[in-house]
Amino acid sequence: MTFDERVFYRNRRVLITGGLGFIGSNLARRLVDLGAEVLVVDSLIPDYGGNLFNIDGVEDRLTVNISDVRDESSMNYLVRGQDVIFNLAGQVSHVDSMKDPYTDLEINCRSQLSLLEACRKNSPRVKIVFAGTRQVYGHPDSLPVTEDHLVRPVDVNGINKVAGEYYHLVYNNAFGIRTCSLRLTNVYGPRQLVKHNRQGFIGWFIRLAVEDREIELFGDGSQVRDFVFVDDAAEAFLKAGASEECDGGVYNIGGTEPLSLRDLVQKLLGVAKAGRVRYVEWPPEKKRIDIGDFYADSSKFTRTVGWRPTVSLDEGLTRAVTFYREHLEHYVGDA
Amino acid sequence: MTFDERVFYRNRRVLITGGLGFIGSNLARRLVDLGAEVLVVDSLIPDYGGNLFNIDGVEDRLTVNISDVRDESSMNYLVRGQDVIFNLAGQVSHVDSMKDPYTDLEINCRSQLSLLEACRKNSPRVKIVFAGTRQVYGHPDSLPVTEDHLVRPVDVNGINKVAGEYYHLVYNNAFGIRTCSLRLTNVYGPRQLVKHNRQGFIGWFIRLAVEDREIELFGDGSQVRDFVFVDDAAEAFLKAGASEECDGGVYNIGGTEPLSLRDLVQKLLGVAKAGRVRYVEWPPEKKRIDIGDFYADSSKFTRTVGWRPTVSLDEGLTRAVTFYREHLEHYVGDA
Repeated sequence: MTFDERVFYRNRRVLITGGLGFIGSNLARRLVDLGAEVLVVDSLIPDYGGNLFNIDGVEDRLTVNISDVRDESSMNYLVRGQDVIFNLAGQVSHVDSMKDPYTDLEINCRSQLSLLEACRKNSPRVKIVFAGTRQVYGHPDSLPVTEDHLVRPVDVNGINKVAGEYYHLVYNNAFGIRTCSLRLTNVYGPRQLVKHNRQGFIGWFIRLAVEDREIELFGDGSQVRDFVFVDDAAEAFLKAGASEECDGGVYNIGGTEPLSLRDLVQKLLGVAKAGRVRYVEWPPEKKRIDIGDFYADSSKFTRTVGWRPTVSLDEGLTRAVTFYREHLEHYVGDA
Repeated sequence: MTFDERVFYRNRRVLITGGLGFIGSNLARRLVDLGAEVLVVDSLIPDYGGNLFNIDGVEDRLTVNISDVRDESSMNYLVRGQDVIFNLAGQVSHVDSMKDPYTDLEINCRSQLSLLEACRKNSPRVKIVFAGTRQVYGHPDSLPVTEDHLVRPVDVNGINKVAGEYYHLVYNNAFGIRTCSLRLTNVYGPRQLVKHNRQGFIGWFIRLAVEDREIELFGDGSQVRDFVFVDDAAEAFLKAGASEECDGGVYNIGGTEPLSLRDLVQKLLGVAKAGRVRYVEWPPEKKRIDIGDFYADSSKFTRTVGWRPTVSLDEGLTRAVTFYREHLEHYVGDA
């Protein structure tokens, strides 16, 4: 079943955790245009992706509340009266999670419980859409990966993210808080963190191309991935938030066309008409948490809400490169 | 491949977290007899299962250290020089986890990270056997349940237990700390907590029979379960701790013969020659986290180390009833 989320969100009260971050801010901008009353919550922890420039131009059409999802009192207050919560706050660095597993636990597990407990007590009729990750599958047994694939995370971040997802499902089933989870594959596009390379490679690669620098690929760059342009990802959240059919479910959000990192970089260098590539040996701390080839089967979500990715990689990379060429100063800096 | 753990454990240094608890203490007693140097760590948190009477008669042949696995400093010290760690400390009440999810998170997630980090820094060559649970599977799709079944926990405890298990596997794969997890089905026998009924039903039922009281079964008592006598469970830990083939794996530890709770209680009442049964409606807070029928396929563990359950339900129940008749005063009390 499909529906028109343009109508659904008009005058709806929507809270976005991690709303100054990459996907959160793109979603916030979209919701503002749809006439929603948007409350953006973000902790602005350095290095995590929140960036006030991400809401440049729409700051007067939404409300920003700087606070941490781990802060139970704030969350108890902020969730009240919300119709939909897009729950995107998180620590997303896999490498960091292996160096400091406790912080990852606090943010990706404890804060999810805080949010869910806040809703159970203060906003039991809200709908929550959780930002999950394809990382929970680990090394795939077969491709494309469906939601029936075993969960087998390869790092602490993947474990805590799946625990956070499971909490949402349990609160749906046991307490009637309506929730679902979108397991996102590699998302890219404007407003992504590109200050450092610990939050995934694609934003970093785009920055290097824009700066006419060298991109390092590990091994022979033959690992296959799929990529979702951020507008497609935002659309997936909108559809999930407006759909009752999704409640209690997990859904893969995959990209348009799987390809090797080698081919991705060639495409990016062609679009940017800048940058170059170099092949280097795998660093051991990355190799041991790498998952080999991965691309997702999103047909369950397509069947449920009619979503499918629409922005081709050529178009998406062009839009991303154009954005960072114009605004790079707001995305580099002290990191 | 099978082997003789009687030789393996002689003079080995073994640490048991939760070692004053039900399975931990039975395992400790066994290890003392095998000539191991046993260090038992337990927090003795009221209501959690730790009980000094559990080591009655062997207290001079092992070392007891009262501390909490959440205490990083203690763990950093205690793991040093150990050959094998049996990691059984945990909060095991499903109902409690739905009322106080944070405490469950602290004990079942954070403390597992503490132990693993302590080993990574101070005892990297140790072998760890983690006490997992069949609860991680949730409502089974098919029976018997193998390790290829999706993980789909139905309550916060199940989520945190599986996160704790995943941490062990990630530390095995990423950091070379050798670990494995045993997903235990319903374990029963001497030294189980029977003060209250929030840690599973079977110990509670045995207590009620011994006290000639009424056992309440929910619905028609037709749910099927399998049961492992604690000596068989202890044997599974011994084999896993001594086997390199297990490293990095998860294994179901199932019982001898699945049967309905109705039939289980009939058998128990026959063995005890006391007690009676009454059928009552499902309490909603239990119904919503019930998992229907469940029994495990343990053939993967049988193939790997040659373990299989050997104590029949008739014999196990007889031994349990005899034990509690003799020692009940040490297992009831202030709860």
